[in-house]
Amino acid sequence: MFRLLFTAGSVLFSSLLFAQSDTVMIRKIADEILVNSKAYSNLHTLTKTVGPRLSGSAQTYKAEQWGVQTLKNSGADKVYLQECKIPHWVRGGKDEARLIAKGKETPLNVIALGNSVSTGQKGITAPVVLIQSFAELESRKGELKGKIVFYNYKFNVKLVNTFKAYSDAVPYRVDGASRAAKYGAVATIVRSMSHSTDNDPHTGAMVYNDTFPKVPTFAIGLWDADKLASAIQENGAVNVYLKTNAHALPDTVGYNVIGELTGTEFPNEYIMVGGHLDSWDPAEGAHDDGAGCVHSIEVLRALKAIGYKPRHTIRVVLFTDEENASGGSTKYLQAATHEKHLLALESDAGGFTPRAFRVNIESDKLEKMRQWVPLLQEYGVYEILSGSGGADVDSLKIKLGIPAGELLPDSQRYFDYHHAAGDVFEHVNKRELELGAVNMAALIYLVDKYGL
Amino acid sequence: MFRLLFTAGSVLFSSLLFAQSDTVMIRKIADEILVNSKAYSNLHTLTKTVGPRLSGSAQTYKAEQWGVQTLKNSGADKVYLQECKIPHWVRGGKDEARLIAKGKETPLNVIALGNSVSTGQKGITAPVVLIQSFAELESRKGELKGKIVFYNYKFNVKLVNTFKAYSDAVPYRVDGASRAAKYGAVATIVRSMSHSTDNDPHTGAMVYNDTFPKVPTFAIGLWDADKLASAIQENGAVNVYLKTNAHALPDTVGYNVIGELTGTEFPNEYIMVGGHLDSWDPAEGAHDDGAGCVHSIEVLRALKAIGYKPRHTIRVVLFTDEENASGGSTKYLQAATHEKHLLALESDAGGFTPRAFRVNIESDKLEKMRQWVPLLQEYGVYEILSGSGGADVDSLKIKLGIPAGELLPDSQRYFDYHHAAGDVFEHVNKRELELGAVNMAALIYLVDKYGL
Repeated sequence: MFRLLFTAGSVLFSSLLFAQSDTVMIRKIADEILVNSKAYSNLHTLTKTVGPRLSGSAQTYKAEQWGVQTLKNSGADKVYLQECKIPHWVRGGKDEARLIAKGKETPLNVIALGNSVSTGQKGITAPVVLIQSFAELESRKGELKGKIVFYNYKFNVKLVNTFKAYSDAVPYRVDGASRAAKYGAVATIVRSMSHSTDNDPHTGAMVYNDTFPKVPTFAIGLWDADKLASAIQENGAVNVYLKTNAHALPDTVGYNVIGELTGTEFPNEYIMVGGHLDSWDPAEGAHDDGAGCVHSIEVLRALKAIGYKPRHTIRVVLFTDEENASGGSTKYLQAATHEKHLLALESDAGGFTPRAFRVNIESDKLEKMRQWVPLLQEYGVYEILSGSGGADVDSLKIKLGIPAGELLPDSQRYFDYHHAAGDVFEHVNKRELELGAVNMAALIYLVDKYGL
Repeated sequence: MFRLLFTAGSVLFSSLLFAQSDTVMIRKIADEILVNSKAYSNLHTLTKTVGPRLSGSAQTYKAEQWGVQTLKNSGADKVYLQECKIPHWVRGGKDEARLIAKGKETPLNVIALGNSVSTGQKGITAPVVLIQSFAELESRKGELKGKIVFYNYKFNVKLVNTFKAYSDAVPYRVDGASRAAKYGAVATIVRSMSHSTDNDPHTGAMVYNDTFPKVPTFAIGLWDADKLASAIQENGAVNVYLKTNAHALPDTVGYNVIGELTGTEFPNEYIMVGGHLDSWDPAEGAHDDGAGCVHSIEVLRALKAIGYKPRHTIRVVLFTDEENASGGSTKYLQAATHEKHLLALESDAGGFTPRAFRVNIESDKLEKMRQWVPLLQEYGVYEILSGSGGADVDSLKIKLGIPAGELLPDSQRYFDYHHAAGDVFEHVNKRELELGAVNMAALIYLVDKYGL
């Protein structure tokens, strides 16, 4: 072991403890991934031969088979499926919308939100009320009966971390339909949760409050959101025609795909690394979350390829049904109650250049992890933040006390593509994707060596 | 002023001195840019209405007019041109190459390097010698007479900072032709300086050693480099046909475009910020260096828009002729001998999310700048490195002692597009571009307030 004294300006890093051999091993991991990675070609196969992977769809099962085969090809000692109960919502064809104003009809680019009910075959035509916020909704509740509510709440571009802007805006997508239906609205439209420069609508899950009527609900592209808002402001009110055949089929089963490198000293103690295999349907789920799946598989492949023998079992989990109802993580949590985990690490924020990890963990363990930052900085990660561990793993911390973490890549492009037509393989950069796997593999190596 | 004590794990930042008002001012700058930036629309105009801007071409002059008008529109107090002597090399049409092996001819995707001489109208057909390094060239110097030398030196994908891989490979592009001509080679081909997943060839400047014959020289796309190398390895030797009409016209004049916000206290002391207006011709020079131009203009626009009155004069310089012969920076250096500069800051590494600045500066001044890092980290810059200040400003440090710096955005995608067909507006992300301008404007504000 050696003590590394870092001086960067007046900044003093005190007494960081790790072995020189760690620098060498992490360089070896990085070289293996940057030279021989299968992450990019695996993602190509997943996105181009399987495609969109909505929970319960035929492609979900094809993706599971892809996962099993890819984990085997990557050198997993053991590959198996974990059965989960999942919903089966279907879009039922192309969603439609038209703005009807001054005797003219203009198409609007919309997509029904996940879990939305159908408009019926004839669709719905009704006047539209422009609502900027839930506060405005409440103050105008008397005007909403028989109307379509259009939430035009904007993604806050001032927030440099785009996930904060998403958290800020997403209640309009998740809760907007029932909050408007409470006051008699017949449908809702929500401005897409994005700062993109295009007009693609961004879908995503919504949740009905069973107290109120279930009304169909849509997202609208940003250009058309502005167009619709302008038309309402100019004309007082306009009509919109909306149609979707979206509907829920009976719940079904899906599978978490699991592959393991068996630990040599502690085979029954797990370091989990995962992403989710399901995706929304407008594109290929390349960043969300094909990237996280191929990141996780690459961690296993690279460690195996360099001949690393983990002390603990390294377990890759490709979760089913993250997007609709978290059926995969719910099942994993149940099973994990009988197991010992050191860490559950997720990648579900895209295949962009890594900048950080965020970990839900006790402060003394966080301090320990932060001592490793100088080993990661060369590869892009320069800080380990404290916070939520990510959608599929955070409940492991909350319910079972398992440290849960997430890779945080650069977030600037994520919401350009998220749940929209742009989430395709062509928008993933090979090197950026690979660097995510490098940092994840390095962190898992360090946890395997030093524990947590 | 307040003392900020930062604790990040065991990492201790000691006694950083800056005012709370700086946090507020930098937030104001960032909000202005993230909400109202013209950087992206300015880049659209430059790339789509002007296009490629090779030194001495008609588009160079059109770009200068764009620069003058855009600086005026952005609120510059003063806009003027600085005349420079520049070369005028022209491509003279589409470059061509064909692999001739086993009686078959296959097209190869090549582009003549900047400054290359012509092959003549008939082109050149000759056997190709595969050379992996200059060491191999020397050891096989007896075999090169009458041959085409093909340098297949690979871009080192293990280097996470892609500019290091570029520096490592670029001597083959710059010096390869003369080093081969010394031993009688009749032309050279160089593997493109890139790790891209496509087959576009990447041009760029080469320099002849006047001691030896000037032979035409080309870059080849990565797929075709591999194809050509395989063909040579299989067949012992193959012939290649090469043709370019590239040639130099007499030197001409170009102009640095300069716009200023006049300082209120020290109008004759300058903080310079710039990029270069010229570009290679296969695309639109969007990242290289349209991004640097619109970054620099945006710094001026944003500071003016928020009503900031700089103490020193903030001077935007859009350099002419960075790519071919540094005619613009040579002239600026001459003029700067009679002026006082606090800092010359450049953006010439693309419009990607910023990660750092690199500054060529005395160590005590570097320590001072590093105290500002906590103010920038929110916006992407988490370190200030010591090193070269960038192509157009570093000579100001070397010759005149002026601190010279460069924005360092994330480098993973830069060499996918650099000097190739991919360097188009569509490969620039609006938010990533804007964050570059935010960090540059923040740094310039701090230098203006605290000096260097």
